Parts: sequence; structure tokens; C-alpha cells
Amino acid sequence: MNAPDLPPLHLPAIKPTANAPLEAKLRHKIDHKTKPQGALGRLEGLALQLGLIQQTDTITLREPQMVVFAADHGIAAEGVSAYPQAVTVQMVGNMLAGGAAINVFARQHGFALQVVDAGVAADLHAHPQLLQRKIAHGTRNIRNEPAMTPTQAQAALQTGMDIVQSLPGNVVAFGEMGIANTSAAALLFARLAGVDVADATGRGTGLDDGQLAHKREVLAAALDRHADATQPLDALAALGGFEIAMMAGAMLQAASERRVVLVDGFIAGAAALVARALAPAVQDYMVFCHQGDEHGHRILLAHLKAQPLLELGLRVGEGTGALLAWPLVQSAAGFLHEMASFESAGVSSRESV
Amino acid sequence: MNAPDLPPLHLPAIKPTANAPLEAKLRHKIDHKTKPQGALGRLEGLALQLGLIQQTDTITLREPQMVVFAADHGIAAEGVSAYPQAVTVQMVGNMLAGGAAINVFARQHGFALQVVDAGVAADLHAHPQLLQRKIAHGTRNIRNEPAMTPTQAQAALQTGMDIVQSLPGNVVAFGEMGIANTSAAALLFARLAGVDVADATGRGTGLDDGQLAHKREVLAAALDRHADATQPLDALAALGGFEIAMMAGAMLQAASERRVVLVDGFIAGAAALVARALAPAVQDYMVFCHQGDEHGHRILLAHLKAQPLLELGLRVGEGTGALLAWPLVQSAAGFLHEMASFESAGVSSRESV
Repeated sequence: MNAPDLPPLHLPAIKPTANAPLEAKLRHKIDHKTKPQGALGRLEGLALQLGLIQQTDTITLREPQMVVFAADHGIAAEGVSAYPQAVTVQMVGNMLAGGAAINVFARQHGFALQVVDAGVAADLHAHPQLLQRKIAHGTRNIRNEPAMTPTQAQAALQTGMDIVQSLPGNVVAFGEMGIANTSAAALLFARLAGVDVADATGRGTGLDDGQLAHKREVLAAALDRHADATQPLDALAALGGFEIAMMAGAMLQAASERRVVLVDGFIAGAAALVARALAPAVQDYMVFCHQGDEHGHRILLAHLKAQPLLELGLRVGEGTGALLAWPLVQSAAGFLHEMASFESAGVSSRESV
Repeated sequence: MNAPDLPPLHLPAIKPTANAPLEAKLRHKIDHKTKPQGALGRLEGLALQLGLIQQTDTITLREPQMVVFAADHGIAAEGVSAYPQAVTVQMVGNMLAGGAAINVFARQHGFALQVVDAGVAADLHAHPQLLQRKIAHGTRNIRNEPAMTPTQAQAALQTGMDIVQSLPGNVVAFGEMGIANTSAAALLFARLAGVDVADATGRGTGLDDGQLAHKREVLAAALDRHADATQPLDALAALGGFEIAMMAGAMLQAASERRVVLVDGFIAGAAALVARALAPAVQDYMVFCHQGDEHGHRILLAHLKAQPLLELGLRVGEGTGALLAWPLVQSAAGFLHEMASFESAGVSSRESV
């Protein structure tokens, strides 16, 4: 960081999940279930990952939590979104009233839902489901200046950590709401992964061709403007959003506590990139839930060598992709626990023929 | 059919779901939810389909049922499967004991599960979850003779219809268990869709390259042997399996009662082809749940112009793909009911900017 008076950021220790004896035990258990070997496809790798996250061959999934981080972005002034900035606070209100897509899916799947004001550009009324953790009234316009100060970036990361630390359960999903946040995500992606900003930039919630070209121009200029912000924390401060920074901190804390981290779409993917740049082992704890329509999301997931569970063409954000994939995570734990083995069921395995 | 003394098969009447005013109403409702237009991706088309199936804009999903049809196949004698025929009856036992993958997912999602002996090559003990509807002790070897008589084919279709008619609820999922049934499915697919039998043939539960080449030879010879069985019922009798025939009948009955039909993998896809050949409108009621690894499944779905909800590399059959996709069906109904509209939530729509 470029602020010599800033105290060093204390990141929580994250242990890689690798454990060869446990992995062998899990693979044996998976392979001896009454099914052809590998026949549960992606669920098998998922069961293995869950077991390694929890360092056990008897997975338990408890009290899943959804945290939606909301913030505004100064770059919205450049006309990079199909919606006006006011929609951020309106959608936060909609979530608190229970009417957004994420509410529907959280109720369906039994997730506790909290909305965090990470940096909405308006003052919000108190609400039992709202955590008021505003860093500032929106970031500054990254076309012209850094999105946030180094102090703000650290505060956002720390706040994300603190929020997760206070949550029950061992599964967390993170969502976001913030008009123009695909711009911040695209810039972080371009910088941290070294991909072309045009490849990282997409239509967000629905730009047309001309608007997309404009967004690409604006973002290319913004990236040039912050050419010196190459280190993860510098890039986060220069290009990020408060919701992305908090989410990155939340991911780090969750991994340090061996929670399963459900990663939603493109914005969450950018937060994952930030978290991974700060502590690579964090990715061991991430379940990549959905590949959306946003141009660049496929490239981002490929960069992370992550294979998403769902590909449903979602571009609503909020964490919806993470919640829609959740039953598959439960199914992976379920088959590992509940299915009979060839031996216990008296079924001929291929080898016994 | 080539049996002049056979009474004509009475298929239930199936109405196409098309309804322009209702479709417009549903689209309006979907488009005015608090999200960018189209942003719930595949769930939006699914909600539309569900509404059209039930001919209402207030979808209700009640008492979902899973029916697994089990049968044996004479062609197993040709070495076209990685597993011995005895595994069919063993896996039926495993399902009745609650230890198969389908049991785990049925419990997870609250599906009532019934197993139907459509034609297992062994006598089964009575069990509360077992419907004894055996047409014969396995089909004959289609390499050498028709799989079943025209009378048996009709009886299997009729049994499938009767079973569905006796079920509660308005959602049905169909699964199957039958060693060598990817062979019967591939032959039906090749014949009814006019695709090359080699393209329709895959590794089933896990053949190696040499075994796959052998399977392709056997199936090509079988298809030649029954070159005259071109009409749907003739093809079903010559090439089919009892579980496939029953499932086709069950699909037809379900559609005639306006139930949502969850279509699983390759075998269910072949049953869907048979049903569609008999009554094209049946497809309106089908939700294609999963695209598996079986070579030919992608081609089959493309032939049906069907886009599956999941692609998880499953090849366990049993109906697992259908149950894993079920929460997405619930989510589609859920967002349509529970999400706020721009008007009700006071959120700026794009048009209002």
C-alpha cells in the first residue's frame, strides 16, 4: 500500500485443504457407492471438496448464511450501466422488504439473509436485516481518481472479515448489489489476471452495442489511469468497490474458519480474485456456483480453473446463482452419507463380475 | 402394428399448451419483476412453460412423484454393458432398501418414490414401494428377434398410463433401471430420429473403447435386423425395453392430465421420443432436466430442440438428473409468485429512467 502510516493488514491464516490420506479415504468411499464409478459426475468432485474443506469424511452442512453487500460506484456517472445509481438503494429496500429474487431463493433454501450497506450513496433506515457498515457514500469515479483510499480498502476488507466472524453455521454465500459494479469487477479482473480489459467487459444488466463500446472505452481509460496499481491491495483501492472489498474480506475469513464458500457470478468472481491474490489457499474453500452471461465470466472462471455447477444465463446478481446451486451441494453431501456401498447393498460391482 | 387381432391402442388426448393471451400475461408478469429483463435466464422460460402447462399465471406444484421403471434386456447377452444382468434386480433391491442415489435425492426433495417391475428377469419379493407390473422376464435379444410382441408393447404403454393415473400431485419424474438399456434407447433414438446408430451409441455405465466398438457393431446389426420396424409402435416393440415403453405411456398420461413431466437422461429421452412420435403435444409438458455424458444424449436433446437445465456429467440413471434439477423448477415458480414488481417495490425500471 502507498500509505506508510497505515497499520499492516492482518489477514486470517488459511490452511490449504490438501490431505492425501483423507482424500484417499473419501475417494474410496465415493467409488464404492452403488453406482458406476464416476457416475455422479460433478457431485463426486464436490463431495471430495466438501470433505477436504471440513477435513472429515462425514460432511455436515449447518445454518447456511447469505450476505448481500451493497455499494455504489462513482463510475456510474460515466453512463456504464443500463440503470441509474438510485436503483442500488431501491433494490436494497426491495431486499429488506423481501421482494427481490435473492429473498425468494433464500426462503426456498433456508438461508438466513443479511444485507450489508458497504457503501451505498444514500443513508439507509435501520432494519433488522441490515448491517450498517458504510465505508463512504459510494466510491469515487475511477475514471478520474482511485475508487477509495488505502485506509478505506483495508477497512472494507476488515469489515467483511468481522461480519463473517459473527455468523453462525459453516456455509456462507455472498451476493452483491451495486449499479455499475460490473465495471469495477471487470477492471479488477483485467488487472489481477492480466487479461485485456475489452475481454473482461460485458453488458452488465443489459447494455446495447453502442453502450458496451462506450463502457469499454471508459474502462480502458480507467485502467490506464491506474497503471501503477499492480499489487492486490493497490488494485483493490484504485479500481474496486466497497462491496467487492468486503466480500473479499468475508471470503478470506470464511476460509480461515473452514466454511464452505458459495461463489456467485462475475462480481463475486472478482472478489474471489482479490481474495486469492491475498491468500491463494482461499480458493480451496470456494464452490463456484454459476457461470452467467456476462462476457468475461467464462474467461474469469477459466483463469481460476473453476468449473461452475450451473449455467443458466443469470445476470441478476444478488447471489442468486449461489443459492440456486445450493441443493447440488446438499446432494453431494447427501449421497456421500446416505448411499449404500456395493458391499452393504449386496450389489455386484464391476470388479466382482 | 403388425398384429391385426390387436385392439387399437387408446392414447389419452393431449392438448398443446399454446395460449397466446396467457403467454402474454405471463411474459408481462415475468418482465415486470424487480430484475433486468431476462436476467433470470433459463428460469424465465421455465416459469413460462410451467404457467402454460397449468394454464394459469399462478403456478402450484403439488406432491411430486418419482416413478422408477425397471426391466431387463435380452441384448445384455451380447456383452453390451459393463455390468451383468443380475445388477438390475440387485439395484431394485437397493432402491427398495433406500440405498440408491435416487433414494437420497428423493428424500432430499420430498418426492414419493415408487419402483415398478416392468420386466425384470427375476421374480421380486413384495414391497410397499414396489409395483409388480412385469410384462415378461426381460425382453428378447433384439440382435436376433423383436424385443417384445405388439401385445406386450401395448400392455407396457397402457400400464404406464394406468400407473400415472393412480398417482396424486401434478408433477411426475420418471427414472429407470435396466442393465443394457442404453442399447435399447440408442436403437429407438436411431430409428425414430433417423440418426446414425454409431452416433446414438455411447459407453453406457462405462465401456472401454473396444467394448464400445463391439456395442456399436451389435446395435448396427440389430437395427438392420429390424429395418421394417419404422412406425413408432413397431419400433418400440422391435427395439424397445419394457421400462422405456411404460415410461412413454406414463409421459403421455401425465401430459393428458397437465402434469409437469421431469425428463431425466438418455433413456428417458428415448421414452420421450417414443411418446412424442405417438402424440407430439406431449413435449409441451416436458422439462428436460439433465444432459449426461452418454454420447448421443446431446444429439437427442438437439433433435428435440430441448435445452437441459443441468449438465453435471451424470451417468447413473435412475432419474437422478430429474431430481437434481427439481429445485430449479421450484425456483421458477417461486420467483413468479413471490418477487415484487417494479411498481410494487418502487424500483426504477429501465424504461422509467
